[in-house]
Amino acid sequence: MGGDHAPSEIIRGALEAAPALKGKLLLVGQREIVESHLPTEVPANIEVVPASECVDMDEKPLEAYRRKKDSSIIVGAQLVKDGRADAFVSAGNTGACSATCLLIWRQIEKVHRPAIASQIPNLHGEFLLLDAGASPDVDPEHLVEFAIMGRAYSEKVMGHPNPKVHLLNIGEEEGKGNAFAKQSYKLLQKHAWFAGNIEGKDMYSKPVDVVVCDAFVGNTVLKTSEGVAELIIQMIKQQIPTHPILRLAYAPLKKVMAPLRKRMDYAEVGGSPLLGLNGLCTICHGRSNAKAIKNALLMTQKAIDNRLVETIRESAAREL
Amino acid sequence: MGGDHAPSEIIRGALEAAPALKGKLLLVGQREIVESHLPTEVPANIEVVPASECVDMDEKPLEAYRRKKDSSIIVGAQLVKDGRADAFVSAGNTGACSATCLLIWRQIEKVHRPAIASQIPNLHGEFLLLDAGASPDVDPEHLVEFAIMGRAYSEKVMGHPNPKVHLLNIGEEEGKGNAFAKQSYKLLQKHAWFAGNIEGKDMYSKPVDVVVCDAFVGNTVLKTSEGVAELIIQMIKQQIPTHPILRLAYAPLKKVMAPLRKRMDYAEVGGSPLLGLNGLCTICHGRSNAKAIKNALLMTQKAIDNRLVETIRESAAREL
Repeated sequence: MGGDHAPSEIIRGALEAAPALKGKLLLVGQREIVESHLPTEVPANIEVVPASECVDMDEKPLEAYRRKKDSSIIVGAQLVKDGRADAFVSAGNTGACSATCLLIWRQIEKVHRPAIASQIPNLHGEFLLLDAGASPDVDPEHLVEFAIMGRAYSEKVMGHPNPKVHLLNIGEEEGKGNAFAKQSYKLLQKHAWFAGNIEGKDMYSKPVDVVVCDAFVGNTVLKTSEGVAELIIQMIKQQIPTHPILRLAYAPLKKVMAPLRKRMDYAEVGGSPLLGLNGLCTICHGRSNAKAIKNALLMTQKAIDNRLVETIRESAAREL
Repeated sequence: MGGDHAPSEIIRGALEAAPALKGKLLLVGQREIVESHLPTEVPANIEVVPASECVDMDEKPLEAYRRKKDSSIIVGAQLVKDGRADAFVSAGNTGACSATCLLIWRQIEKVHRPAIASQIPNLHGEFLLLDAGASPDVDPEHLVEFAIMGRAYSEKVMGHPNPKVHLLNIGEEEGKGNAFAKQSYKLLQKHAWFAGNIEGKDMYSKPVDVVVCDAFVGNTVLKTSEGVAELIIQMIKQQIPTHPILRLAYAPLKKVMAPLRKRMDYAEVGGSPLLGLNGLCTICHGRSNAKAIKNALLMTQKAIDNRLVETIRESAAREL
């Protein structure tokens, strides 16, 4: 029920992903509405689980949790808690999803704050940035938790063996940054996988696996890169003449821009995992289309297959 | 003496700017080295002021201040303090420049932290972001100081009448963000020029004048946007065939990229002012070329002509 294009795009994406999924795909929401979007021939592994309420995209997370006990978010998270589902995927209100999963699933032992991990394209492929928006107020020790969670995802889902972790900072050398960054550096330094500071510019050009920062910085980085990419695309468009004859010469530009747009398209990855809880939640962009939902579901299947939550639990027990 | 291409590019830029400057242009540094880069015919308003020491680009700011009392940075800042110069322009060690100017000039009354203000291109022209890197650890009340300083620069140097100030945040509505952002919002809200929160994405697409944030976030935004812009340019380049015949079809792309590169070129603005002190310092990029230095000098002349420091002093007295 969540997302700007729900339920039609969500259900379309689910239908596309269903054949590739190993278990059942539970569609949580208002039964009549969900069923009205389903074709007469539904894949055998799709099932509707009723939830009478919906959380609005701008509703306050904790209010929604208290007031709407039969929301699709609560019902979805509860399915995981009850062992009836392996993971919960949503394009709904990010704050409400994060808060609900936290309250119902609770943190993995020794983890204090959940984090959203975002895959970002760079010259060498993709790196993982976290926290991209789950826990706005954190202490330096929480960045060590993020590092451990990010390493598990980078290895198990993105396929990077023995991933290194960088601290996002405003200088490369040790001792750079604000008090928070300096203290984080000291704590991260105790781990063999720590690779030092990295600056915002360099994460796009150097081969990096995992970058940790607080959610304010992480979310700002994410939105800044979206803004700059969109600005450049707009500026390029403005250079192209509007007259159809004059436009002809610019046809190769389309060929150049297409793969670029594909690399920059959030829908290619589909969703970002909420890490650190006793359950797996994949958070999709509010404006998710069917392709984004499909890719988020496939990625979530990969995380289940590779025992992501268990890996984080084992790493936290060993390293924290 | 400061900058990756000093002194040759610095002196070239100074020679190019000199005819357009109203007063004297004092070149501070080791006399023999500076003079060896000057042509036989030097513009009448250029003068060399000797300074026997240089601060290295990676030297620690306070150590440099304590140990090199005859550095070009200290001598330059002292010229302003003594009333022999109206402003100090440097492409040297940013931290050392900021610290030295702070120690020699001191803060304007009621201002507690200096800030570096950076002009950033967006769809509507340019906006001003501060603090871009001067004061890593600040309190919410310092963001109000930055706002007042930024407004003065936006109006007096960038020519925006009655500029509005946005708070960089990870959500648009009041109440969004971390504890620091929430408290900053409350303090900024008391001023008529406050226009609310803005997200990292929207500052590139909406018409904004001034955006305030702490130096860690500001510097990260700056470097992230550099990184993303460079990544996109690299990705576009990779699409273009290497074979000269095949390349021909891509010639219009050059025409498209040229104005884009110009818009993104730091050298077009040249430098970023260090605001909040009893003196005017323009900080140039370490890799400044002659064009960057020339533009930084012209912009600094504009700030002098429009009484920037006095305007900040008056606004601080009235509004803080």
